[in-house]
Amino acid sequence: MRVMGIDPGLRNLGWGVIDVDGSRLRHVANGVLHSEGADLASRLLSLHIQLENVLRAQSPDCAAVEQTFVNKDAVATLKLGHARAIALLVPAQAGLVVGEYAPNAVKKAVVGVGKAAKVQVDHMVRMQLPGVTIAGPDSADALAVAICHAFHMQSAGRLQAALRAAE
Amino acid sequence: MRVMGIDPGLRNLGWGVIDVDGSRLRHVANGVLHSEGADLASRLLSLHIQLENVLRAQSPDCAAVEQTFVNKDAVATLKLGHARAIALLVPAQAGLVVGEYAPNAVKKAVVGVGKAAKVQVDHMVRMQLPGVTIAGPDSADALAVAICHAFHMQSAGRLQAALRAAE
Repeated sequence: MRVMGIDPGLRNLGWGVIDVDGSRLRHVANGVLHSEGADLASRLLSLHIQLENVLRAQSPDCAAVEQTFVNKDAVATLKLGHARAIALLVPAQAGLVVGEYAPNAVKKAVVGVGKAAKVQVDHMVRMQLPGVTIAGPDSADALAVAICHAFHMQSAGRLQAALRAAE
Repeated sequence: MRVMGIDPGLRNLGWGVIDVDGSRLRHVANGVLHSEGADLASRLLSLHIQLENVLRAQSPDCAAVEQTFVNKDAVATLKLGHARAIALLVPAQAGLVVGEYAPNAVKKAVVGVGKAAKVQVDHMVRMQLPGVTIAGPDSADALAVAICHAFHMQSAGRLQAALRAAE
């Protein structure tokens, strides 16, 4: 199963793709997209086109997007909402189910604790995906989201197997 | 020239289309779209499909979207940002230039003052588009955005004509 993680942002949108085979993870690709354009509509269109190209090239089976941490800067929150809509829309248009995870859930899945520092997340992503070359901080976060999604799907799979065995 | 106005919202997205011929305005159509789906990605996809259908059916030459009033409810602001991205993206994908206007600019263009009440905006939209049947409050706001865009384009046109005459 191929999983794509997305860390949305209007200026920098991180993406990361991993292959999941049971409990084995393998890095496939990662990168950072930058929106271009004079106005907001053009920048969103630019992100949409680029993300669609990545999705087509990588052919993931499912996708997951980090939930936004709503902060006190309402203007920044609004901008992030715009970028996040593109991150959710593109995989949905390709017929994929899109998971959403809070930043703390991502950290807990990757590092083991919900309050981990960014450098710890980066370190654990590299540990779990040997040989990976990370394009930038945003794609490290995107790979962490993909790992989190893989982890949750495995748990759900084990739960279903246990329920079937108990029937 | 055919102008489409959009008042974005995740639950209710209002749209309105008018024809502009010099200073004459004519109502073409208006409506309200409702997002459907179990998760946010599905709801955004649903809005995208519906808005694309409206755009295809109405064939506007340009579009305008109301700027979001950033309020204290950060979660609501974030949701609105998601819906607003769809409102900006769909016309941009069709190759249209998308104008953006602050709520006060819309009120000033339609009513004459920036602090007008919603009921005044609704009244003036009906006055300027005789015979219009308005689908709901969100489509009244969308028609107001379209009128505002028409008004600003006329001003820009007059300015250019004056500059040419002065050369």
